[in-house]
Amino acid sequence: MQRPFVHPAIEDITLESVLYALADPTRLEIVKRLAGAGGACGMNCSAAAPADLPKSTQSHHFQVLREAGLIRSERRGTEVVNALRCAEIEKRFPGVISSILKASEKAKKR
Amino acid sequence: MQRPFVHPAIEDITLESVLYALADPTRLEIVKRLAGAGGACGMNCSAAAPADLPKSTQSHHFQVLREAGLIRSERRGTEVVNALRCAEIEKRFPGVISSILKASEKAKKR
Repeated sequence: MQRPFVHPAIEDITLESVLYALADPTRLEIVKRLAGAGGACGMNCSAAAPADLPKSTQSHHFQVLREAGLIRSERRGTEVVNALRCAEIEKRFPGVISSILKASEKAKKR
Repeated sequence: MQRPFVHPAIEDITLESVLYALADPTRLEIVKRLAGAGGACGMNCSAAAPADLPKSTQSHHFQVLREAGLIRSERRGTEVVNALRCAEIEKRFPGVISSILKASEKAKKR
């Protein structure tokens, strides 16, 4: 039996941990993929990590994102489905995640 | 003769380095002090670091902030004056620094 995923309550999420989680290019990329094209929030995705990353590295990045409160992970059979906790984060830290996603889209286009 | 401070050009500043610099509570506090009360941007300050920090730790934090492009440091006699590069950062990454400063003010009030 696998251990269930642990997610922090929204009021326990800290700004510093959110910023730390997003300061890594791979994790920012994962969050962007989860957010879907155009910076919109909410898409679920079970394959958001760059495919060339070792499985253990992928797991580590998803763990950091989960512990920072940025994503919610759920086991469905043998698969793990991850979803951004975008609405919750927006409510707790208005504008932070949306402006970061927008800025990161813009930076990529250059 | 002391070496002059080196500041990255605005187009060389990366979102990841800005987020990394702000992910540390002490550096976020320094940036908040530089931004002045209420999240407004622009105040210069030569004593923005918490006073109980060792001088070398203070220097390290200011260096990280400077290299990330968040502050501009200038020697005036024996003193170093630091200023947030807020307008430049806002132009490059709209909403990022302002929403982080606002969120951090809000988090503190809780």
